[in-house]
Amino acid sequence: MVCTIEISEKPKLNDPILIEGLPGIGFVANIAALHLISELKAKRFAEIVSASFQDFAVTTEKGGARSPMNELYYYQRDDGGRDLIIWYGNTQALTTFGQYELVGKVLDIAQELGCRFVISIGGFKKDEVQPVPAIYSAATDQETMKEALNLGTKIMVGHVFGIAGLLIGLGKLRDMKGFALLVETLGMYPDANAARYALTALSKYLNLNVDLSKLDATVEQTKKILESFGLIRNIAEEKKKEEQQMRWFI
Amino acid sequence: MVCTIEISEKPKLNDPILIEGLPGIGFVANIAALHLISELKAKRFAEIVSASFQDFAVTTEKGGARSPMNELYYYQRDDGGRDLIIWYGNTQALTTFGQYELVGKVLDIAQELGCRFVISIGGFKKDEVQPVPAIYSAATDQETMKEALNLGTKIMVGHVFGIAGLLIGLGKLRDMKGFALLVETLGMYPDANAARYALTALSKYLNLNVDLSKLDATVEQTKKILESFGLIRNIAEEKKKEEQQMRWFI
Amino acid sequence: MVCTIEISEKPKLNDPILIEGLPGIGFVANIAALHLISELKAKRFAEIVSASFQDFAVTTEKGGARSPMNELYYYQRDDGGRDLIIWYGNTQALTTFGQYELVGKVLDIAQELGCRFVISIGGFKKDEVQPVPAIYSAATDQETMKEALNLGTKIMVGHVFGIAGLLIGLGKLRDMKGFALLVETLGMYPDANAARYALTALSKYLNLNVDLSKLDATVEQTKKILESFGLIRNIAEEKKKEEQQMRWFI
Amino acid sequence: MVCTIEISEKPKLNDPILIEGLPGIGFVANIAALHLISELKAKRFAEIVSASFQDFAVTTEKGGARSPMNELYYYQRDDGGRDLIIWYGNTQALTTFGQYELVGKVLDIAQELGCRFVISIGGFKKDEVQPVPAIYSAATDQETMKEALNLGTKIMVGHVFGIAGLLIGLGKLRDMKGFALLVETLGMYPDANAARYALTALSKYLNLNVDLSKLDATVEQTKKILESFGLIRNIAEEKKKEEQQMRWFI
Repeated sequence: MVCTIEISEKPKLNDPILIEGLPGIGFVANIAALHLISELKAKRFAEIVSASFQDFAVTTEKGGARSPMNELYYYQRDDGGRDLIIWYGNTQALTTFGQYELVGKVLDIAQELGCRFVISIGGFKKDEVQPVPAIYSAATDQETMKEALNLGTKIMVGHVFGIAGLLIGLGKLRDMKGFALLVETLGMYPDANAARYALTALSKYLNLNVDLSKLDATVEQTKKILESFGLIRNIAEEKKKEEQQMRWFI
Repeated sequence: MVCTIEISEKPKLNDPILIEGLPGIGFVANIAALHLISELKAKRFAEIVSASFQDFAVTTEKGGARSPMNELYYYQRDDGGRDLIIWYGNTQALTTFGQYELVGKVLDIAQELGCRFVISIGGFKKDEVQPVPAIYSAATDQETMKEALNLGTKIMVGHVFGIAGLLIGLGKLRDMKGFALLVETLGMYPDANAARYALTALSKYLNLNVDLSKLDATVEQTKKILESFGLIRNIAEEKKKEEQQMRWFI
Repeated sequence: MVCTIEISEKPKLNDPILIEGLPGIGFVANIAALHLISELKAKRFAEIVSASFQDFAVTTEKGGARSPMNELYYYQRDDGGRDLIIWYGNTQALTTFGQYELVGKVLDIAQELGCRFVISIGGFKKDEVQPVPAIYSAATDQETMKEALNLGTKIMVGHVFGIAGLLIGLGKLRDMKGFALLVETLGMYPDANAARYALTALSKYLNLNVDLSKLDATVEQTKKILESFGLIRNIAEEKKKEEQQMRWFI
Repeated sequence: MVCTIEISEKPKLNDPILIEGLPGIGFVANIAALHLISELKAKRFAEIVSASFQDFAVTTEKGGARSPMNELYYYQRDDGGRDLIIWYGNTQALTTFGQYELVGKVLDIAQELGCRFVISIGGFKKDEVQPVPAIYSAATDQETMKEALNLGTKIMVGHVFGIAGLLIGLGKLRDMKGFALLVETLGMYPDANAARYALTALSKYLNLNVDLSKLDATVEQTKKILESFGLIRNIAEEKKKEEQQMRWFI
């Protein structure tokens, strides 16, 4: 049961875009994805469990048990725009091997649903961040890069670690197009401001109205989930370790 | 031969409950399961060997060789109550990956036999324990949680590591129900007292009479097996290491 | 290509016994197996390469390249005795996982050729060794244990690490019989004396005449092979490390 | 998606020779392969991605995303000589397991195209190197070794780590022939001089005219790619670590 996927529904989607939102640096993607799901009332259609996730359960306040898990949601637009597949979860895979497998599985599903475009979100760790954080991007091709730059992003220089990087790289190998949105962040705690700017750029690209007034509630919810999984504590503790050790917290 | 299962018999079972009893903190589950097997004269029907177990054999006093192994037993009740599948063994898997695979395989077998309910047992490590140890529980859903609380348990807060946590979490993903019984224990040595209270709660839930008068003999047998596998010594030695290092000891 | 086996011939064998002879503590098994192969002119019929072996090639004096590899040889007796399958190699697998897989594959082949009995050879590391080293054994069952004790062996107490232990344990799970011969050795260097006593006990069991006059030549050849693979040096260097670190050097 | 191969074309080749050119000590092979590809205008026909590569993407100056990847190119000669398959990439696999799998996959493809001869290139790390560096070789057999020595090489003594060694060893197990060319190098930086001598020996063997006048440009290009993947920095940083830690940088 290396990587198990339970698909509860196969939605018919209009040229859908896959948006990645797993926990990583500053939890920018994680907050943004959860907010999209809440605001758009996106519907969950797939659950993914990997043997490369952590082997524990966490409990909720009422004693409920929760496992490390990834989920896929879909959102069908009624304005003729492209539909969305939102990839949300409470963890990335713990090993390089598991990361490749996870991305591979998600891309398999997405492609089966007609997806040819991917957007990964992430934090770009900086020691200092301006109130209006810069957004960096990397893309599968020049044309898509131009579209990303039109959103006001800068060219990303360097490595894009973890799922955010893999998704773009492996998508490209499958002849998909797409770009990464990497928002400056101090990276230690769920960064509401970075998520806000990620969502703003994303909404602009998708030509989608996303209400950001309840974003703080989403951040609180993300904090609670991440704390229960020990992720926030870990990040603070591992602050001093070398970056490559934290490799999956993009 | 990643995870090999030898099934010697496919019993017909009445709405069976899977009870997990692998070695872990305080060996609470391990003692309880072995005691259930002896007292109920449960019958072994499956042997499981995983490439994620340790690669050695241990010898008995007479020179017999024993391997790291998991086993499944069944118990058919004649009082109309639900039958039992008891999951016993001398080891958990050594890797996260192996743990997921092991739980997956056991759930496959259990579901094939009609199982829809799982109970995992474990120790909850405390620095100090009262003569009557508290029992904590976590469950797949609110209704089941209520049943567990009715046994006099408290709500578990935090992580449930290892097989005890995985079983509940992965069971839930398969639409099974169930709960974990986690008994307070100092955690270093096979804890007869904790096992006694685990069995008492379990018997109450199962509405089953289990004679506890020979429990000390079961504890002695468990000690001997675990010593031969080097597990008891290890726990004492590794006492100072960080908890996540001991991750598979429940 | 996890574990690749090239079978060049499927010999018809008479109730064959599998004899394990991989490098381990004191290289007792390795010397004994190589000597059996030379003296009996056993014929190679299978080559095994595993992705769990080391990823290098070693060169011979003339520039030839040799890979980490395991091999199976057979010997057909013309005296009506049981035929032999000899398992020889220049390495064990580097991971627990690889060890399980390797034993599994070899047992698959052996069983296909009608094998129901296995003998593993090994060194039993002692700080001091008598000129006539004691031999310890462990067996799959009481009856076989009696046969082993009749060879003058003592009962092994404790763990049998690596392939020597796995073979007995996993053989037992497949309803095979067999025993391990573990000869006392200082364990650091290829131990000719220990190998001599292993071969003597083995010959007695097999009722086979094996000329030991050229055993020193075999030891020299073993040394050369092992040195080229860096195994002898490693053992000396790792002398101080904890035993479990050296886990595959049984 | 353990090891994924996208084959865009199945060329018809005349008794082709596989030439390995992955990053390793001194990047000798990597430079040589890239130069062959440029000068011969070799055509790419396969892309290989392995879950054992690193899980990140790197960005180009213009924001394009590049993944860790291996590629196969072919070159059809019009002078009646044997055609070439050139194995190029920006990484080796990160694990022993991955290395075996990678070589296995590439040999599968090569054999399918009729390849029976392999040449691996590498650096042989020395503390001091003469202006005309010595070239060492190891071969699958005596006859091939003689051909390698005729190129002016010396007999390699010791281990050939990484892909360069595995390719010769695993090729031999598949009844292929071939040799390794290992050029003396300080090993830290892309070594243009070592690559020049590797190409000279290779051209002589292949009876092929390769223009070396633009070799410096190739070295610059290799540097840039490797820097973007963090490989050059890593090598310098890890200089002090034990050799086996750097095992895949042959």
